[in-house]
Amino acid sequence: MREVAIIGLGQTPVREHWTLSLRDLAIVAGRAALEDGGVEKVDAIYTGNMTSGSINQQRQLGALVADFMGQRGVEAVKMEAACGSAGSAMRQGIIAVASGELERVLVIGVEKMTETSGKEITAALTGAADAEFEAIHGLSFVGLNALVMRRYMHEYGFQHGDFAPFALNAHANGAKNPNALFRRTITKRQYDEGRTVADPISLYDASPIGDGAAALLLVPAEHAPRAIRVAGSASATDTLSIHDRSDPIWLEGAERSAERAFAQAGMRPEDIDLFEVHDAFSIMAALSLEACGFADPGKGVYLAQEGAITPSGRIPISTMGGLKARGHPVGATGLYQIVEAALQLREQAGQAQIDGARIAMAQNIGGSGATVVTHILRRA
Amino acid sequence: MREVAIIGLGQTPVREHWTLSLRDLAIVAGRAALEDGGVEKVDAIYTGNMTSGSINQQRQLGALVADFMGQRGVEAVKMEAACGSAGSAMRQGIIAVASGELERVLVIGVEKMTETSGKEITAALTGAADAEFEAIHGLSFVGLNALVMRRYMHEYGFQHGDFAPFALNAHANGAKNPNALFRRTITKRQYDEGRTVADPISLYDASPIGDGAAALLLVPAEHAPRAIRVAGSASATDTLSIHDRSDPIWLEGAERSAERAFAQAGMRPEDIDLFEVHDAFSIMAALSLEACGFADPGKGVYLAQEGAITPSGRIPISTMGGLKARGHPVGATGLYQIVEAALQLREQAGQAQIDGARIAMAQNIGGSGATVVTHILRRA
Repeated sequence: MREVAIIGLGQTPVREHWTLSLRDLAIVAGRAALEDGGVEKVDAIYTGNMTSGSINQQRQLGALVADFMGQRGVEAVKMEAACGSAGSAMRQGIIAVASGELERVLVIGVEKMTETSGKEITAALTGAADAEFEAIHGLSFVGLNALVMRRYMHEYGFQHGDFAPFALNAHANGAKNPNALFRRTITKRQYDEGRTVADPISLYDASPIGDGAAALLLVPAEHAPRAIRVAGSASATDTLSIHDRSDPIWLEGAERSAERAFAQAGMRPEDIDLFEVHDAFSIMAALSLEACGFADPGKGVYLAQEGAITPSGRIPISTMGGLKARGHPVGATGLYQIVEAALQLREQAGQAQIDGARIAMAQNIGGSGATVVTHILRRA
Repeated sequence: MREVAIIGLGQTPVREHWTLSLRDLAIVAGRAALEDGGVEKVDAIYTGNMTSGSINQQRQLGALVADFMGQRGVEAVKMEAACGSAGSAMRQGIIAVASGELERVLVIGVEKMTETSGKEITAALTGAADAEFEAIHGLSFVGLNALVMRRYMHEYGFQHGDFAPFALNAHANGAKNPNALFRRTITKRQYDEGRTVADPISLYDASPIGDGAAALLLVPAEHAPRAIRVAGSASATDTLSIHDRSDPIWLEGAERSAERAFAQAGMRPEDIDLFEVHDAFSIMAALSLEACGFADPGKGVYLAQEGAITPSGRIPISTMGGLKARGHPVGATGLYQIVEAALQLREQAGQAQIDGARIAMAQNIGGSGATVVTHILRRA
């Protein structure tokens, strides 16, 4: 297979976008990626999205986006894997270019969530869990994550306040990212006083939804000798329900996905200069760090407490704010992560720049760890 | 790229399945394909589905299906392109195997539609159209197709009764397929007396929804010297809205998709022994035949009237009943078509067998021709 390069990046700010519709968001990000790559026409557009069928009453986003962004006729399809949708679109785009079947593939993650009621959003997000064995009990998605966090605290002896460094780091980094939804730092006291969403998850443990789109343009590396390279790309699954796992506080899908990506790249955790984690909740950031080998089981929180996850630390995470502060337009998030990782490697991350970043990793998680897509990027 | 072979086929009957849930249907078809192929484990499962997010309150079908069919951990994702979802999953599966990235990919199309109200089904299907420019006017999906059929009749001077041969052929063929929803022939009189659904579309012009799943197991052809080959695979798009097309009765996406598939296969329409068309409505069968070069513009209906589309005709279509009689579980249909085409090439189509079939084509259409996926299969 051919090596794949990323020659174009695009994103909209994550906001409550009153003047941009679902298609508008995709077009803005997609056009930006094409302009950035200096390309007019592509062979295919793979769109990642989770909730458009219910929240926007719109399916067939692939054709819709191709049509309205001036790429009428090209191959197009939508990928869905809950919050892992955009990472999955990236994965399929890479395979298509690597195969030799397609030369230029635009991948776009898009989500327009804020034009409906909180009730409908909660219902749509709960679809990431098992409808017949989890949601049927009235468990919301945040409720599921609360159970996992509570179990982790019990098992390893942590208090709620121990998770604060994840939120503080994300907000500090988001404050430096003009595209972030939350561009303000928070204090430990604010974290501690955050109101409870689903005990023990409080306001600052939970990422905010939002509207947004992110896009990347993929081509064979031989045509772009200086562009960012895809060094590893892997997707793996775990049980959909948390109760079906032998260990509810171990992300086996994330471990498997990271192992494959590391093997492809010929790298180890020590080689990674920054890591865009799927911090939909503080607990997921800790579990992702552990599953990927950056910390031993139960030690992910210590990594945060030691400051290792900050921009100057050993393994900076959520460098542009993460899901927590940049915001989490669910089906777009996986590509926001990769756009941000690529910006870091290009030294275009502005105030959020990690000095000397040469290798970056991004992990996009669907559901409570059921679909996990890991990408490793490197400078050419 | 490597040539791809189909070594396993599976399907459930299309029914109102009171005892099989969404996941059950996928598992039954998926397991059947694995058993048929003599394979225990796969590398990935690509699932095609259109409506599970709203009708079944279930997203992340890729991981769900992998989990519950004993393939926990494998790569998995869902593809959605309205009624073109399953064909799109096939297309991605072929690219993944052809690329060398994956060795064994199981593609499953599944849809469980009958456990909700007609109103909710109509709303979900309308998501295939443009929510902001078509659906917003109160147009249902069948209404859109009615406008196309009326225009076609006006432009080329046809009466409603002229379309009868499409329904008669589909029902006659469905009667020979134990997996078809409707296993009975119909008469011209029944067709003429069918009650109107959306003028001029009557009951026998419209395909029925249903529950069902179909699955195929894909491997590199070098490992399966005698298995059915994928000779051509292509996907193309057209405008999402019909009113944006310069000619509302010409399926440019279907033309483009078929041209690419023919070019890949090094074939022409004359080489095709049977054609599984996307006869969601009679008019779509006519338009698909024309766009793919089997009839000149406006002549697709004559092809049916001449008997060319029957099992003994020049270009048999809907050989196992088509969407009209086998049934149309929307996100599964594209793989029912390919399973049926492969059964014909294997001479396993039972009473519906087309004698001496060596090359088969299947065209899966999303929306009113916005996403069109064409596959050409051949005997080894």
